[in-house]
Amino acid sequence: MRAFVTGASGFIGSNLVDRLLAAGHSVVGYDNFVTGQSRFLKGALMSANFKLIEGDLLNNDVLRTSIAGCDMVFHLAANADVRFGTHHPFKDIEQNLIATFNVLEAMRVHGIKRIAFSSTGSVYGEAKVFPTPEDAPFPVQTSLYGNSKIAAEGLITSYCEGFDFQGFIFRFVSILGERYTHGHVFDFYQKLAADPSRLEVLGNGKQRKSYLYVQDCIDAIFIAIERATDRVNIFNLGQDEYCEVNQSIGWISKRLQLEPKLEYTGGERGWIGDNPFIFLDCSRIRALGWRPKVSIKHGIEITLDYLRANPWVFEARP
Amino acid sequence: MRAFVTGASGFIGSNLVDRLLAAGHSVVGYDNFVTGQSRFLKGALMSANFKLIEGDLLNNDVLRTSIAGCDMVFHLAANADVRFGTHHPFKDIEQNLIATFNVLEAMRVHGIKRIAFSSTGSVYGEAKVFPTPEDAPFPVQTSLYGNSKIAAEGLITSYCEGFDFQGFIFRFVSILGERYTHGHVFDFYQKLAADPSRLEVLGNGKQRKSYLYVQDCIDAIFIAIERATDRVNIFNLGQDEYCEVNQSIGWISKRLQLEPKLEYTGGERGWIGDNPFIFLDCSRIRALGWRPKVSIKHGIEITLDYLRANPWVFEARP
Repeated sequence: MRAFVTGASGFIGSNLVDRLLAAGHSVVGYDNFVTGQSRFLKGALMSANFKLIEGDLLNNDVLRTSIAGCDMVFHLAANADVRFGTHHPFKDIEQNLIATFNVLEAMRVHGIKRIAFSSTGSVYGEAKVFPTPEDAPFPVQTSLYGNSKIAAEGLITSYCEGFDFQGFIFRFVSILGERYTHGHVFDFYQKLAADPSRLEVLGNGKQRKSYLYVQDCIDAIFIAIERATDRVNIFNLGQDEYCEVNQSIGWISKRLQLEPKLEYTGGERGWIGDNPFIFLDCSRIRALGWRPKVSIKHGIEITLDYLRANPWVFEARP
Repeated sequence: MRAFVTGASGFIGSNLVDRLLAAGHSVVGYDNFVTGQSRFLKGALMSANFKLIEGDLLNNDVLRTSIAGCDMVFHLAANADVRFGTHHPFKDIEQNLIATFNVLEAMRVHGIKRIAFSSTGSVYGEAKVFPTPEDAPFPVQTSLYGNSKIAAEGLITSYCEGFDFQGFIFRFVSILGERYTHGHVFDFYQKLAADPSRLEVLGNGKQRKSYLYVQDCIDAIFIAIERATDRVNIFNLGQDEYCEVNQSIGWISKRLQLEPKLEYTGGERGWIGDNPFIFLDCSRIRALGWRPKVSIKHGIEITLDYLRANPWVFEARP
């Protein structure tokens, strides 16, 4: 196929581009390079099957020209900065909701009907059922980020209903691995690089998190788009295990051979709107034959090794 | 209190304005008069406690000036035209989602923290549980309208979480009564006025609907804002009974003393994205002491009598 990947120079996007190319597909990558890194696409750019376009999803002209001729869209571009949602309330609407709308309209104009979308376990708000299944009780949204993602999901499923699209929606836990550039492990690594003697931990460190390794995540996306046949296909993507932030700090300290003094900011949550616990029931995607190959602990170790080998990502980060 | 009512000249909005004034509150009504009717506010405009502002919710300057000094917002303005969602996909985003965002930001700027919001039973998509409770299984959105409403709900609940607002969210079934100007009963009445010998029915007429009388609806809103104390308060508003479209046609024909030949367009749904069945579990609002006083049949009769006595609404309708 000819795939259109938004957020192509991001963490998951660039890994997906590499995997699509390796599987023999041709790929049009689209990114505004606000948070993406062109270095992530160094390998891809050596392929004759890859075309990179610098463009914004809010620019419909560039978007519509670029998407022409593609068969399927992988829409990964997003404002993924959950933490500062209340500092710039319109950013999530613009970059997650309106951007998704623009992608769907561009698809409609060009008769492209298949879309895979990176959503988030944050759409479950403060879940009451663990592990949380896709049809958990109707959540109350607590973050502008989670809400913009569920609204984008709803745009996609409405287009499936109204315009006969086929949608694949993936609700991720936190993803990590090579090219990971934000989140707990990144923050901890960065803080420890600056001062190995101490580590500030947002909240009480008891927040439980389930991390998935990026290649396992992409395996699941590939399996879903190959095997799921409904008009709307919604999948949780995560691990059957979880860890506490404190536990991950232990693994990180050991891997880095450090013994930092831990300083907790206190409270059950790291920040306003943070979820104390995201732990997803992934039996739906597992029923299609998918299994994660990398444990949370090993995923964290791979990530640390990557960050150590690539100090430039800290310089490059906006 | 000093209430700010958006959509003040609409069907439910103008009835709410009258009731708020009757209860001794002062009211600032806000409307762009695209679908609203100034005649609905004839009575209100005679009150010294009522101020009407012609403004659009997409105009932040007018909105923010107008909202200053109010204590609570009743946000009823919306694009309520479910049926044509796929003809103008951005309208729902703009008028339901971005408009709601603008209202929330205007409130935040002026330190106003209480908001009541008219949502819809359409947010349950194709519900699998009947009657459908507020915490029904996580729905898949099938209409751009329902999705824009759930996204607006999520903005409100995120502001409750992030900015310490208090929110009252009402998921309505279809509302009817005086000043009702769209929906099945309106359409049927209008068609029969044009040609009493026949009636075109969208779908197979077996769609089941639960209608609530507008004054019962407003009773529920008043009870909720007086008695519900959570930060986020979500209530279904509907009847414990429902009817089939066919049944309502029988009541309408009898009330109008007509015997039209029924012509069905066929299929289980009236239009793409229509819900075959909206029937809400209202035990949550009933637990606060609310009971509807008017049955579906009687509500339809009141509506017909109103439409017969006010033929101008058909001329005035855009």
